[in-house]
Amino acid sequence: MTALPRINHLLTSGKPGESVRIRGWVRTRRDSKQGFSFVEVNDGSCMGNIQVVVPGEVPGYAETIKSVTTGASIEVEGELKESPGKGQRVEVEASSLRVIGSADPEKYPLQKKRHSFEYLREIAHLRPRSNTFGAVARVRNRISYAVHEFFQSRGFLYINTPVITTSDCEGAGEMFQVTTLDLAKLAQLQTTLDFSQDFFGKPASLTVSGQLEAEIYATSLGDCYTFGPTFRAENSNTARHLAEFWMIEPEMPFYELPENMSLAEEFIKSVCRAVLDDCQEDMDFFNKRIDDTVLATLDNILAHEFIRLPYTEAIDILEKSGQEFEYPIEWGRDLQSEHERYLTEQHFKQPVILHDYPRTIKPFYMRCNEDGKTVRAMDVLVPRVGEIIGGSQREERLDVLTDRMQEQDLDPAEYWWYCELREYGTVPHSGFGLGLERLVQLVTGMQNIRDVIPFPRTPGHAEF
Amino acid sequence: MTALPRINHLLTSGKPGESVRIRGWVRTRRDSKQGFSFVEVNDGSCMGNIQVVVPGEVPGYAETIKSVTTGASIEVEGELKESPGKGQRVEVEASSLRVIGSADPEKYPLQKKRHSFEYLREIAHLRPRSNTFGAVARVRNRISYAVHEFFQSRGFLYINTPVITTSDCEGAGEMFQVTTLDLAKLAQLQTTLDFSQDFFGKPASLTVSGQLEAEIYATSLGDCYTFGPTFRAENSNTARHLAEFWMIEPEMPFYELPENMSLAEEFIKSVCRAVLDDCQEDMDFFNKRIDDTVLATLDNILAHEFIRLPYTEAIDILEKSGQEFEYPIEWGRDLQSEHERYLTEQHFKQPVILHDYPRTIKPFYMRCNEDGKTVRAMDVLVPRVGEIIGGSQREERLDVLTDRMQEQDLDPAEYWWYCELREYGTVPHSGFGLGLERLVQLVTGMQNIRDVIPFPRTPGHAEF
Repeated sequence: MTALPRINHLLTSGKPGESVRIRGWVRTRRDSKQGFSFVEVNDGSCMGNIQVVVPGEVPGYAETIKSVTTGASIEVEGELKESPGKGQRVEVEASSLRVIGSADPEKYPLQKKRHSFEYLREIAHLRPRSNTFGAVARVRNRISYAVHEFFQSRGFLYINTPVITTSDCEGAGEMFQVTTLDLAKLAQLQTTLDFSQDFFGKPASLTVSGQLEAEIYATSLGDCYTFGPTFRAENSNTARHLAEFWMIEPEMPFYELPENMSLAEEFIKSVCRAVLDDCQEDMDFFNKRIDDTVLATLDNILAHEFIRLPYTEAIDILEKSGQEFEYPIEWGRDLQSEHERYLTEQHFKQPVILHDYPRTIKPFYMRCNEDGKTVRAMDVLVPRVGEIIGGSQREERLDVLTDRMQEQDLDPAEYWWYCELREYGTVPHSGFGLGLERLVQLVTGMQNIRDVIPFPRTPGHAEF
Repeated sequence: MTALPRINHLLTSGKPGESVRIRGWVRTRRDSKQGFSFVEVNDGSCMGNIQVVVPGEVPGYAETIKSVTTGASIEVEGELKESPGKGQRVEVEASSLRVIGSADPEKYPLQKKRHSFEYLREIAHLRPRSNTFGAVARVRNRISYAVHEFFQSRGFLYINTPVITTSDCEGAGEMFQVTTLDLAKLAQLQTTLDFSQDFFGKPASLTVSGQLEAEIYATSLGDCYTFGPTFRAENSNTARHLAEFWMIEPEMPFYELPENMSLAEEFIKSVCRAVLDDCQEDMDFFNKRIDDTVLATLDNILAHEFIRLPYTEAIDILEKSGQEFEYPIEWGRDLQSEHERYLTEQHFKQPVILHDYPRTIKPFYMRCNEDGKTVRAMDVLVPRVGEIIGGSQREERLDVLTDRMQEQDLDPAEYWWYCELREYGTVPHSGFGLGLERLVQLVTGMQNIRDVIPFPRTPGHAEF
């Protein structure tokens, strides 16, 4: 078999009169009383199906057409015609029809009716055949490539930081352990745990962030970014948490916080623009069927310069807002989602970058301000999602860094190489991180983060 | 600070007379007896350093210049001049010089002298500052982006298959376990292992391949590819094995083996072309310093159509070769590296795709041929590296697939979703996989796979 034009190509630029061959999966079939059939075929290249008219004269029509059921794979040869029906420019008049693989209509789990997203998660091997999950996959792909395009066009190096690690970026626990020890044997015998027998000779776990390693490359080769899987062993069963998700983490030498904020803004806008430009059909679907504010949100993001607002001023605004919040507002406390969303959705009605947070609520690697109270942190907030990016200028002064580590009960000796980046040719530098899945949620309006990743991993779930 | 033109830009297109500001790390300094200094500065944007001439009249010269040592970070303002020296078009005449971060010459671990790659692995946080590892990082980046460009330009969807999995693609063991069980407690108490208490409620491990999951997307949305980390808990301390490495796995519906072979050939050529076009300086370095056959190898790959050769004929050629091999040659045995390299390097002297291997030595998912003896497998062999790609047409017939599983003592019930892809709308399909690090080795000539990944993971090693 050879490469054929795919259905998106035929629907947009196929010429009536052209001989065509198509292959794909049947979405629906309708038999007319006049002895011919309409078959809607999808090949995943776009949301739209191509309509195939199968005349009764097609060889073997009577036997074949019975197997042309939802989910079956078929091959059709025929001619492209102008379509008299509405909603489509062209259709195929079949001269031959072949069922490649049938799908027993009594058993096929993905019938034409609408299924709940919960049900579809249980059949994650078939859900990409649905309109919603096909659209999610295409948009997720476009976003992923837009990430690479953005950074590559600016000369950033793509760096693969390790998944298996013996250090903990956030110093916050919640990590999965990785081991080759025989756990059953370990349980049976009463013994002492001996990591020298383990694969890496010491406790190892799955990374929560590639930032510390990305800083190595930023402070030697210049602007760089990671884009890979990260992990949290957090027992959270929410619509916002995954145990395994993909993170994008750029890291730039010589950037101070203002440049970091500008890059984050450009980055978000560039991704939104790519999706609006290239995924129009899928975006119309999301706006119509999933959340009728997604297009407006993206337009809002593109139309405004992101507000820059110090945390301290944000606290002031929140205190004066007259809103009833579930969580208290107080200088020194972290903001909750409700606060962030109030700021970006109601107060400013546009994206906001909060910066200069209290040092007590932020990790050791963020640069301390002269006021002794705040660090050069930033969070980008967007309407409907809240925080989408977190970042900071990094602490490049060795003495301040080790003080901060001790303040947070971390042992500088365990971060010896991270400290050495400050000992040898240190430079001011900054970076940020964002979760790909949050970005896909922002763009598509999908409510549950489990529905924007092909195979979600959550407590109790690692199927497929 | 704001974005400045980087050194690669100044070296290639900076204009004499231009005012410039540069920031980077000092590679060397040489003081002239006439009271001025030459400083070689690198910022990672290219292999080449820019030469900075620092006149004695620069403010603070006498005190500052002492700290301008190898590894220190500096900022220079000045004017671009035509360089009288050889090997460089332009140089910077400094009007100001500032040390951003010093590097104690008594302690800095990366002095100008040549260090062994073994030593550099121990300082993986500094090795990107060396010529070789800078070049590896830039070439690896170019290859990675070329992978995305190749597939995206052909309409393939990028799919993130899961890292944490409860199934085993190869059915071959050698997997890392992922757990949140308290191992110390497990060891202390004499108890029975209870995975219902573990994070995912059952044993989970790190994936060895995303292929099976990629097939889900190929058989619903069309051509797709994965590009992500994969893992082998193999206790191999060789220059060819990593416990964690990045794999690229395209998967295409309606492709049979010949189309699969063509795609693999186009793919390899496209990556080689991108590197030759865009990484000339780094490639010249590899050819001069690392392996003087790398450029010839890439030219050879680009110049030839890859030979297609059935395994059975390869055995015949090897038997008649008159060569002394360490491992025996016999139909039904897997080929060893020495055999593969003989075929591609000595016999054909060009890339070869071997296909249709004995079924007994290949995994269950490869499509069985009618002869009952072989499967539609393919291996792409290239000079100097041997096997670079492995792939196959996949078995799309449910009955044959389940027979093959049983033949290999695998339980079809554990692969229920994989089987269902054959039950509902099955289609012929194919795919292949290749390790990014092998590709980087092919292109750069680097001998040890630990030197082409930023932070290698091997038995006993998961530092940084």
